[in-house]
Amino acid sequence: MHPLDAATKLEVTGDKFQGATSDAYWNFTGPFGGATAATLLQAAMRHPKRQNLPLAMTINYCAPVAKGAFDVLVSEKRTNRSTQHFSVEMTQGDDTIATATLVFAARPEGFAHAPEKIPEVAFPEKIEPPKAKAPLAWIDRFDMRFASGFPVMRPKDDAPLGSARTEVWMRDNPSRKMDFLSLMNMSDAFFARPFHVLGRLIQVGTVSMTTYFHCDEADLAEVGEDYLLGVADANIFNKGYADQIASLWTRGGKLLATSQQILYFRDKAFVPGAKK
Amino acid sequence: MHPLDAATKLEVTGDKFQGATSDAYWNFTGPFGGATAATLLQAAMRHPKRQNLPLAMTINYCAPVAKGAFDVLVSEKRTNRSTQHFSVEMTQGDDTIATATLVFAARPEGFAHAPEKIPEVAFPEKIEPPKAKAPLAWIDRFDMRFASGFPVMRPKDDAPLGSARTEVWMRDNPSRKMDFLSLMNMSDAFFARPFHVLGRLIQVGTVSMTTYFHCDEADLAEVGEDYLLGVADANIFNKGYADQIASLWTRGGKLLATSQQILYFRDKAFVPGAKK
Repeated sequence: MHPLDAATKLEVTGDKFQGATSDAYWNFTGPFGGATAATLLQAAMRHPKRQNLPLAMTINYCAPVAKGAFDVLVSEKRTNRSTQHFSVEMTQGDDTIATATLVFAARPEGFAHAPEKIPEVAFPEKIEPPKAKAPLAWIDRFDMRFASGFPVMRPKDDAPLGSARTEVWMRDNPSRKMDFLSLMNMSDAFFARPFHVLGRLIQVGTVSMTTYFHCDEADLAEVGEDYLLGVADANIFNKGYADQIASLWTRGGKLLATSQQILYFRDKAFVPGAKK
Repeated sequence: MHPLDAATKLEVTGDKFQGATSDAYWNFTGPFGGATAATLLQAAMRHPKRQNLPLAMTINYCAPVAKGAFDVLVSEKRTNRSTQHFSVEMTQGDDTIATATLVFAARPEGFAHAPEKIPEVAFPEKIEPPKAKAPLAWIDRFDMRFASGFPVMRPKDDAPLGSARTEVWMRDNPSRKMDFLSLMNMSDAFFARPFHVLGRLIQVGTVSMTTYFHCDEADLAEVGEDYLLGVADANIFNKGYADQIASLWTRGGKLLATSQQILYFRDKAFVPGAKK
């Protein structure tokens, strides 16, 4: 079984799903947030009343997921002719670990227009994998080829800040056919923007992430096991929180998903005039 | 009482809030989505356990709000040392009309960096209000000065598509001191991107919207009753849905909020090879 399928595996008991964290996606203090998001998406997709395709998902990371078992409860909130709304909650014991809202929708053919274009970058076959890698399991779950914006450590505080923008080809490792779970997982697979800008490993964590899907199953089948180009950037780092905007593109330039997230960061070394 | 305060007015009974739609913010088939979002934010802010400031809000519009009374239920999901999570549900009778998730957070001073800058545009005093205006009440609730991207009607289908980008100074009408409710309301106050691109009034509706707040109460007090510059754009229009990315800036160039939404559109005239 592919590690992503193992990480998002769910058993059903009554109206609840049960799963367990996966060491293969371990991050600093819990499983990688993308895998958690894919798990909650998987739960909603397996709801017996679900119809149509994922359109929008917001996940709020309320607390670190502890190693071990968790429950997922999916509630159908509203089903219209072409859209459907679910609320999802992930718990461990009595504690809420994550909440999510999901919208599923029918995707009729119609007017198509893409003002935003894929950036022109080298193809993944022309790019070596990074030589250095943090020893975190989840990073090994992606084959990443940085076309630009690989994070560079800043040896001194007065060195210029790094760029917040990254262009990186990504696919699952081992490779896996693209589907909505993989796309959701990948929408969180960018290194935290504060690492890139500050050039040091500091305490960070995603608080909330929203992903919009601009594709259907035929678009995903077309990707197969190929790389997607991920583009990530940030607007602002302010008062302990930073945003991230991201997009995921096929090699042919089709925009499959856009995502934004807000994350906290704590870098005490950088607080001007801070009280110790 | 200011129309926004009237529209977001809530009475408390037990653990529920009661409100009523406001004609002053009426849109095509229900109240303007920004006012609904501000109302749900207001409910969460008034929850007795709420601490700290709004950081992130996602609202899902499940169904049109019918004219009249509605209930809002706020559930505290998790309270950590510096972040807090709520889920909110708006109902009319037994029907779920909207769901929302909210994150509140303490905003410590620290590293600040803004890679994205305010665009250089003319100040609002140099810009006339639009000469033409759709007869919708909510539009009258904003004083809008378009620095660029006022929607232009396209008389013929083969005319070039309009730009998806708009730069517009906005303030409440009548003017009102800036607060989180006004900011939430304003993050939805852009005309739907499909109007701008297609140059015609078609059926549209926001399905889900997420706003991140990058400010605290001192930043808002600094705005007072001044205009904010709103910048909106879109990445993609595809299979019945379009996205919108937006940002709200003070005159001095401070980024107060970023927002994204996904909306449906139906423009049968533009379906290539559509069945009638």
